[in-house]
Amino acid sequence: MKPGPGEFERIRRIIAELGPLASGIGDDCAIVPDGSGRLVVSTDLSVEGVHFRTQWLTLKEIGWRAAVSSLSDLAAEGASVVGLLASLGVPRSAGETDLTEVMAGVGAAVGAVGGAVLGGDLSRADQWLIDVVSLGRAARPVTRAGARPGDQLWLTGRLGGARAALAAWQRRSEPAPAAREAFAHPLPRIRSGLALAQSGATAMIDLSDGLGGDAAHLAADSAALLEIDLSLVPIHPDVPPEAQRERIPAGQFAALGGEDYELLAAMPVEFSAVDSTRIAAETGVALTRIGRVAPGSGVRLLLEGEPLSLPGFDHFV
Amino acid sequence: MKPGPGEFERIRRIIAELGPLASGIGDDCAIVPDGSGRLVVSTDLSVEGVHFRTQWLTLKEIGWRAAVSSLSDLAAEGASVVGLLASLGVPRSAGETDLTEVMAGVGAAVGAVGGAVLGGDLSRADQWLIDVVSLGRAARPVTRAGARPGDQLWLTGRLGGARAALAAWQRRSEPAPAAREAFAHPLPRIRSGLALAQSGATAMIDLSDGLGGDAAHLAADSAALLEIDLSLVPIHPDVPPEAQRERIPAGQFAALGGEDYELLAAMPVEFSAVDSTRIAAETGVALTRIGRVAPGSGVRLLLEGEPLSLPGFDHFV
Repeated sequence: MKPGPGEFERIRRIIAELGPLASGIGDDCAIVPDGSGRLVVSTDLSVEGVHFRTQWLTLKEIGWRAAVSSLSDLAAEGASVVGLLASLGVPRSAGETDLTEVMAGVGAAVGAVGGAVLGGDLSRADQWLIDVVSLGRAARPVTRAGARPGDQLWLTGRLGGARAALAAWQRRSEPAPAAREAFAHPLPRIRSGLALAQSGATAMIDLSDGLGGDAAHLAADSAALLEIDLSLVPIHPDVPPEAQRERIPAGQFAALGGEDYELLAAMPVEFSAVDSTRIAAETGVALTRIGRVAPGSGVRLLLEGEPLSLPGFDHFV
Repeated sequence: MKPGPGEFERIRRIIAELGPLASGIGDDCAIVPDGSGRLVVSTDLSVEGVHFRTQWLTLKEIGWRAAVSSLSDLAAEGASVVGLLASLGVPRSAGETDLTEVMAGVGAAVGAVGGAVLGGDLSRADQWLIDVVSLGRAARPVTRAGARPGDQLWLTGRLGGARAALAAWQRRSEPAPAAREAFAHPLPRIRSGLALAQSGATAMIDLSDGLGGDAAHLAADSAALLEIDLSLVPIHPDVPPEAQRERIPAGQFAALGGEDYELLAAMPVEFSAVDSTRIAAETGVALTRIGRVAPGSGVRLLLEGEPLSLPGFDHFV
């Protein structure tokens, strides 16, 4: 997960406390030089009751999502996957098979993007917790800082499916199957991230906390203004009925929803519709132009020509 | 932490479940080839109420110990330290300064061995939890598998101090200052590990779970018998009174105590007392020969000429 507003402030304080000992904190990944390119490392903690509920997902799905939330950070660096380590905290009520179920989900997720489980740790805990550390390699890691005025903003896939599932569960209903699938089995966009990096991406971020909040992180780190037209954002088909229940536009519902794990990339203006069509064909994941980078700061979201202000999404509050 | 007997069985089951997706699990560290030598990665989860209590240690000490339990795994590979990532779960009752206290301890521990904090993650949780992922480099990582009959067993530092502190706390008393210091501020034996690896160590392990249990892991992975003479093991000065309370010999008390984070190394027979004196002078940490590797399996502990059987220490029970 990326830090939301409150969590972000806490991290700033920690960095101030650590002084020169803190090196490279701030991006989702640590970047370590190695002999051949760069090693990219991301750690992501998922906690029962905060990031997931055992009533909603199977343990295998919980393991899958925990792994994807970490692997997705590698995708946003334009890295390929080496593997991951998983530390599990296991409640006393859990049985033998519960533990293997979680790890089967973790293993399936990293296996789906060509990596392996490299190690881990186990402990008792009061609630389920899964900390996944992903290791990847990138010849030229793409950070959040690098978007330049004139760059175009591109998005992988479509948004809002995970939020639609969450909204259904929260009103004690069963989500539509496709929305449930979007929440339970997000796909880490490793191949899309690699292709975008190779095509010259100047900055990337994965949308774990929602388009609104994550675009703000990218804008802040790039010291630029991001203008996004929400009417261009592809929306998951189960979004409109849920948005209607909450009496907000579907585009707003989708832009505020977190945990879709799609990528937002700033691409040089030379990156064309032809390039995006080729990458979509190669990766099987759509690429859509949704806005542009301009001089200034912050994020300007437009919905049907009108400006819209959206808060981020903070797991820490 | 290394897996104890029960936890070990769980990990075996997980490996069976993962099949070919699990690569390199079993040692405390994952080893990833890179351009210049090997990258060594270790993850170590510390949970409040399982690995530490906030009544016994300051939050800074808790952060220090959590980092050392992970860095110690790098020491046992003969690796130098690049840095670490720390994922924190923070209870709702914690204040701002609590979080920076924990991270100040984590930062001080990695700074003491020449590394930096590279990144991390934050979440709410029901109890404090700290997952530390350490990254190091080794030209030739030393694993647990490689001890050969004829090798000699060498130990860094002295044992039992952490257990002496724990025993005092458990009977609601204050530990002796030196015992408390051994528990609160173990030093990761990075320089000793590097020197032993450069001097030809065939296998190493750090003593997080106690000499008895950890020697058994090394014996199993090396398919050899470890013969250890407990009367040769240097014992922390606060051990004898605590051992006397429990009516067991001091050597047994020290050998069963976990969390000393010293190193046990199998060294070729050519490694001499002169070599060990030189390394001790260079690192400021004593090296003591405490036994040998023989054909066979398991661990034979001798105390004043008599065999002694000791169970390991399982955090998972």
